[in-house]
Amino acid sequence: MAGKDLPVSPLALPLPELPPVPGVSLGSGRAAIRYTTREDVTMMVFPQGTTVAGVFTKNKCPGAPVDWCRAALAGGKARALVVTAGNSNVFTGKAGRQTCADTAAAMAQLAGCKPKEVFLASTGVIGEKLPTEKLVAALPGLFGALGDDGWQGAARAIMTTDTFPKGATRTARIGDATVTVSGIAKGSGMIAPDMATMLCFLATDAKIPAPVLQKILAKGSDRSFNCVTVDSDTSTSDTVLMFATGATKHARVPAEGGAMLKDFTRAVHEVLMDLALMVARDGEGAQKLIQIDVTGAVSAKSAHRIAMSIANSPLVKTAIAGEDANWGRIVMAVGKAGEPADRDKLSVAVGGTWMAREGGVVAGYDETPVVAHMKGREVMIEVDIGLGRGKARVWTCDLTHGYIDINGSYRS
Amino acid sequence: MAGKDLPVSPLALPLPELPPVPGVSLGSGRAAIRYTTREDVTMMVFPQGTTVAGVFTKNKCPGAPVDWCRAALAGGKARALVVTAGNSNVFTGKAGRQTCADTAAAMAQLAGCKPKEVFLASTGVIGEKLPTEKLVAALPGLFGALGDDGWQGAARAIMTTDTFPKGATRTARIGDATVTVSGIAKGSGMIAPDMATMLCFLATDAKIPAPVLQKILAKGSDRSFNCVTVDSDTSTSDTVLMFATGATKHARVPAEGGAMLKDFTRAVHEVLMDLALMVARDGEGAQKLIQIDVTGAVSAKSAHRIAMSIANSPLVKTAIAGEDANWGRIVMAVGKAGEPADRDKLSVAVGGTWMAREGGVVAGYDETPVVAHMKGREVMIEVDIGLGRGKARVWTCDLTHGYIDINGSYRS
Repeated sequence: MAGKDLPVSPLALPLPELPPVPGVSLGSGRAAIRYTTREDVTMMVFPQGTTVAGVFTKNKCPGAPVDWCRAALAGGKARALVVTAGNSNVFTGKAGRQTCADTAAAMAQLAGCKPKEVFLASTGVIGEKLPTEKLVAALPGLFGALGDDGWQGAARAIMTTDTFPKGATRTARIGDATVTVSGIAKGSGMIAPDMATMLCFLATDAKIPAPVLQKILAKGSDRSFNCVTVDSDTSTSDTVLMFATGATKHARVPAEGGAMLKDFTRAVHEVLMDLALMVARDGEGAQKLIQIDVTGAVSAKSAHRIAMSIANSPLVKTAIAGEDANWGRIVMAVGKAGEPADRDKLSVAVGGTWMAREGGVVAGYDETPVVAHMKGREVMIEVDIGLGRGKARVWTCDLTHGYIDINGSYRS
Repeated sequence: MAGKDLPVSPLALPLPELPPVPGVSLGSGRAAIRYTTREDVTMMVFPQGTTVAGVFTKNKCPGAPVDWCRAALAGGKARALVVTAGNSNVFTGKAGRQTCADTAAAMAQLAGCKPKEVFLASTGVIGEKLPTEKLVAALPGLFGALGDDGWQGAARAIMTTDTFPKGATRTARIGDATVTVSGIAKGSGMIAPDMATMLCFLATDAKIPAPVLQKILAKGSDRSFNCVTVDSDTSTSDTVLMFATGATKHARVPAEGGAMLKDFTRAVHEVLMDLALMVARDGEGAQKLIQIDVTGAVSAKSAHRIAMSIANSPLVKTAIAGEDANWGRIVMAVGKAGEPADRDKLSVAVGGTWMAREGGVVAGYDETPVVAHMKGREVMIEVDIGLGRGKARVWTCDLTHGYIDINGSYRS
């Protein structure tokens, strides 16, 4: 990375128009923390009363900004967000904690809030001290130039090895009012199960109590980011934050949320799913997006584990890169998940063609549609375990020479 | 694969001379099951009274030969072994079970034993019916040409994507007698933790009760093959079998084994370790052998899990391929193991140079020896967790373009 130009993923989607979210002022600029020829700092400022929710990596060695956000989240209130790209401020010891404290203090002074109402996120190289002075020095200029139309720029400024910017937006009805839910994300490697994944920031103009917002965000992350894997590696910085400004008036949302948030919940989950799939599409070196459906497992949890075992198997992912519908490796990956499975009840389909059924190859199945399907950009794998009713759907990408190229020289 | 010529691994070791093991007659030949230009069947025949031990894959969808061996092992007696390369007889349903029964019956007739005294192993493509007739037809010729000097040929005939043959031998004292322990192995991908790994066959002329032999083999496999990983994938065929012919007279080994087998146990474990490291050295696409030592974990089990998390991390393995001592990724891999770890107590060394200590980079550490170490063929990583006394050592190889080349076109 470090400003290296990677070819844009062939699976890239265009960045949609991201309209202003009432209450959110944002902008991006240059602090030259690591990248010297592009924007690398993003700022958002929110009005008083803004609530916040967050989901973080389950990595046991998280970065200092993750610790900072976890502590700040306890208050449930947010007034500002500062994101840096190029240096993750991870494994930087006391200096890293000081960077967080100093950045939050400087931002709080600008925004007229408490440091604990400032949220922080960083991605990039691990173990190098983040030059706090450069970051703090960049904040006033950035603050002076905030606007409501900075979403496109922010989607770009948070990128690291990403090859395209990622954004999504929806509107939702709460009572008689229409609110907006918009989000941006970055991430193209170190995407793995059971964690909140890379950096993702959502904002809405709805007024939602923090505990309700947290519940909606956590469930949505489970169904989206936690169903996407690129290389099974779990970043130390992964953060999903959502801010609700309350700038648009609507019927009061009760503390327990409830039915009136059904459409809002749908919108949040759709934005999260859009962003999660964009991350899979930008998997380092990805040439194909892979969707894996597991049915017939003993439980939904078991199905999810089996699906992730397939999605993380280097042998499955290289076979798909080679456009080989090697269902034998899929069977292997089912078996290595350690979940209940019976070889003789297992069925496997690729691109809708069942190649193996109940423990053996389907005699005389037509390879033609399978071969054609494997040549495409999107590959669908279906596995029926034949034991129960548990099901799961996850996404990943293929494992190609591009992954080795990118990760064999990340710091160079 | 399928006869494709891969360049020999730069980490290859020469095949040592493998002397006859009294009691073992063996040979290899051609059945043209898949490979048509090389030997692909290996046979061993043992005298009456030969005991057997076995360790198998933990994959829940094992091949038919694994099921066959598990059942046969209950008898504790062995008279013959038939190994095929090129087709794994996995996920072949009833036909696969029939292949096992037919092969064992044919072999039993030749050897004058019961079918349940015949052991079987196959590796290669999954999900294609193994042409039983070809295999059975090849057995009599092979049986007629058995000798005691076929170890070198057998080491070659069991190979699939291996780029060099793997063998090891030791002698050991039992009382006043000297016995031999020899072994051959194949495997260069789908090597993963918590299983018996690829194919490995050991034989000795000692007379060891089957339960004692089983205990020695299981412990040795745990310390060797279960500490080696190439790509985290767990094969459906992995099998380690050990045969004890009892052809050399020595003091009677009691049912509980005990102190008189100390030197014999050492020899078995050394042979297993030699073979396991050869497998790591032949990891698909491997350019560097990586040794990972974890100390200071809360338990040995926890240390092993952390070490395996590092060894299986694609980001760590690609960094090493790129000769980048990226200890940040090592920290990430420690954290993702899910085991107790405290970022601020963690230390990381590469090639004996401590780059990070107690949660931060070591100020002014000398990069010169680290850079030199990374350019070598053998890379040593040390991680101290700083919490307890649990330790573990595992091995893996780097993740290179070669892995993608080999596995992106395995069936083509």
